[in-house]
Amino acid sequence: MLNQQSAALNRMFQALADPSRRVMVERLARGPASVSELARPLAMSLPAVVQHLQVLEASGLVRSEKSGRVRTCRIEPAALKAAERWIAERRSTWERRLDRLGDYLAAETGRPRRGSKP
Amino acid sequence: MLNQQSAALNRMFQALADPSRRVMVERLARGPASVSELARPLAMSLPAVVQHLQVLEASGLVRSEKSGRVRTCRIEPAALKAAERWIAERRSTWERRLDRLGDYLAAETGRPRRGSKP
Repeated sequence: MLNQQSAALNRMFQALADPSRRVMVERLARGPASVSELARPLAMSLPAVVQHLQVLEASGLVRSEKSGRVRTCRIEPAALKAAERWIAERRSTWERRLDRLGDYLAAETGRPRRGSKP
Repeated sequence: MLNQQSAALNRMFQALADPSRRVMVERLARGPASVSELARPLAMSLPAVVQHLQVLEASGLVRSEKSGRVRTCRIEPAALKAAERWIAERRSTWERRLDRLGDYLAAETGRPRRGSKP
């Protein structure tokens, strides 16, 4: 289970590490789009866009479905949330540590912490 | 400026795409650590750990300084925050879009949105 989560995080962060793929995610955050709509702001061939789309789909951040000749792509907010949560949890661990350090220093010096109520 | 930000995001997400580097970030979120402390839970050689550390430092997520023979590593919360903010902004764009869609559907059907006050 942990390994599955870890592999999913590898793929999501890897997917987000490319500027063109981030442009695609930004576009899809504003609503579903076809592959050619996704390609419009990008200076690359359609096959290159499709390759980036495959990386995004493999990461779970985006899904797409074909209807007739048009493939419509959508963002998958739960995956976006999972990547965000991983970072937020690390940051909050660090902030709690700072709080404890502040409490300790206040107790040692006998002075209230900056920003704490008297 | 935008390109600098984009290059920084490339490096940060790339740094977070590796499970060993995430273990190192998790450890550093609990407080500063030496390189050998970082290496302890990882099944790899010290030079391999140093290489991962270099990727983390190049991404801005971690900084380190040498004092005598010990190199102490610390997390850089501002960088962690920047990566988190990028994802959070995409997610909130998507959520605002859903809200507008809900308002539109409520107006069309004349029914209040689920969860909205009467």
